[in-house]
Amino acid sequence: MGAKIPILFVFVMLFALSSANPSMKKQYKPCKNIVLYFHDIIYNGMNAANATSSIVAAPHGSNLTILAPQFHFGNIAVFDDPITLDNNLHSKPIGRAQGFYIYDTKNTYTSWLGFTFVLNSTYHQGTITFAGADPIMQKSRDISVTGGTGDFFMHRGIATIMTDAFEGEVYFRLRVDIKFFECW
Amino acid sequence: MGAKIPILFVFVMLFALSSANPSMKKQYKPCKNIVLYFHDIIYNGMNAANATSSIVAAPHGSNLTILAPQFHFGNIAVFDDPITLDNNLHSKPIGRAQGFYIYDTKNTYTSWLGFTFVLNSTYHQGTITFAGADPIMQKSRDISVTGGTGDFFMHRGIATIMTDAFEGEVYFRLRVDIKFFECW
Amino acid sequence: MGAKIPILFVFVMLFALSSANPSMKKQYKPCKNIVLYFHDIIYNGMNAANATSSIVAAPHGSNLTILAPQFHFGNIAVFDDPITLDNNLHSKPIGRAQGFYIYDTKNTYTSWLGFTFVLNSTYHQGTITFAGADPIMQKSRDISVTGGTGDFFMHRGIATIMTDAFEGEVYFRLRVDIKFFECW
Repeated sequence: MGAKIPILFVFVMLFALSSANPSMKKQYKPCKNIVLYFHDIIYNGMNAANATSSIVAAPHGSNLTILAPQFHFGNIAVFDDPITLDNNLHSKPIGRAQGFYIYDTKNTYTSWLGFTFVLNSTYHQGTITFAGADPIMQKSRDISVTGGTGDFFMHRGIATIMTDAFEGEVYFRLRVDIKFFECW
Repeated sequence: MGAKIPILFVFVMLFALSSANPSMKKQYKPCKNIVLYFHDIIYNGMNAANATSSIVAAPHGSNLTILAPQFHFGNIAVFDDPITLDNNLHSKPIGRAQGFYIYDTKNTYTSWLGFTFVLNSTYHQGTITFAGADPIMQKSRDISVTGGTGDFFMHRGIATIMTDAFEGEVYFRLRVDIKFFECW
Repeated sequence: MGAKIPILFVFVMLFALSSANPSMKKQYKPCKNIVLYFHDIIYNGMNAANATSSIVAAPHGSNLTILAPQFHFGNIAVFDDPITLDNNLHSKPIGRAQGFYIYDTKNTYTSWLGFTFVLNSTYHQGTITFAGADPIMQKSRDISVTGGTGDFFMHRGIATIMTDAFEGEVYFRLRVDIKFFECW
């Protein structure tokens, strides 16, 4: 009979431990999952009013109003793109995607992304920071979520990016499926 | 009576577990907290001797000695700034803040930061790496601490940044309150 | 006698806990260790066919085919470098190192690195993302591994970088000893 006390005690202790300690919640299914869209309109010398990104660096021989030859290798673009809940550029933004991308391959389209979602709406308050390689020509590709603040305090995860639409070399829309595997 | 043995055993096991495993120390109050200052003097064509940062990229139509119009949108600056324990530019540096910032909005001052504190003093030895959006006009703003080495091996946390002072568009000083929530 | 049941139960519970929860595996010896090499050939105006990286930004007064004076302060280079298992440039690549480096000091060679290993071979499938300061003149230096995908899902760690070889200012080879301390 006396043995029942420790069993109960163990349960209580383990429960207390897992409640008190966020790292105990780590798991292979996401602890949080958000899908958002962002919209990038590249400045091309003629669309100053609408453009949300600008080429700011280019390799020798290129200029800053036309993406470079050789798959844009060497271009750096800085952006401040609206984030929406659905795939409509004209939906009310719930935040901004801010950062940069680099075209970094000479024989195909790939980029490297460093950016942050700055979310400020009734849905979400806080930031989510991303980094990683984006092999653009693949249908879906994974980058790392390296940190967060506010609602996403200390979060980490994986973001699956898909090019949802593009028009010429001026507009593209990315669908970002953010799966957090470390929540606090 | 026999029930007391497992209770003690559970305590011992739980204690051993929490000692052996750094992730068990995760908590919502910081496991380490450091406040530091760094000092950025932007090259403006006339201050080569003192400048600690340089504009290295700009949007179409701008140059590299004057920050761009439209809230500096599209400028990238590279920096190697002294870090001090107090808010005095002339205090003995305890390390260098090295990396870059990007001005990334056309209708207000915001930047995106990627940089590392390289600390090398009796106070601290090691590096702390930061990434995130910096909405400069807000009094305080949070960015992510994505990694560390040396004294800050594998650390993660949140850094609260405040603009402690600025002079025109040449000098600014940031106060960085680094709260580590994951220590090893 | 009844006391033995809870003891066994505790073992089972603790084992289940540590199996189910990746964070329990955190430890100060690496949970995974990989050594790889990557090879950077900087475009100098004459080696377009072989070059794997390009200077895309420079401080006022410099150009994009010659690294800047003052220890290259202010240069940003974008790269897409082959990764090999050994220190031979001509070995079969097992992936690409993609990202950028910034020369960020005026009185010595230091850089800041943001890049991703994109691995795609029978050895490894997935990405590893790095960020940190690289004081090039030191024999070995540590940067942070801030995230991973695929085989390196959610991993974190420390990468020790050594300059394994260099030829003038055109070619350098880095040895990267990646120690993961957080595996999932």
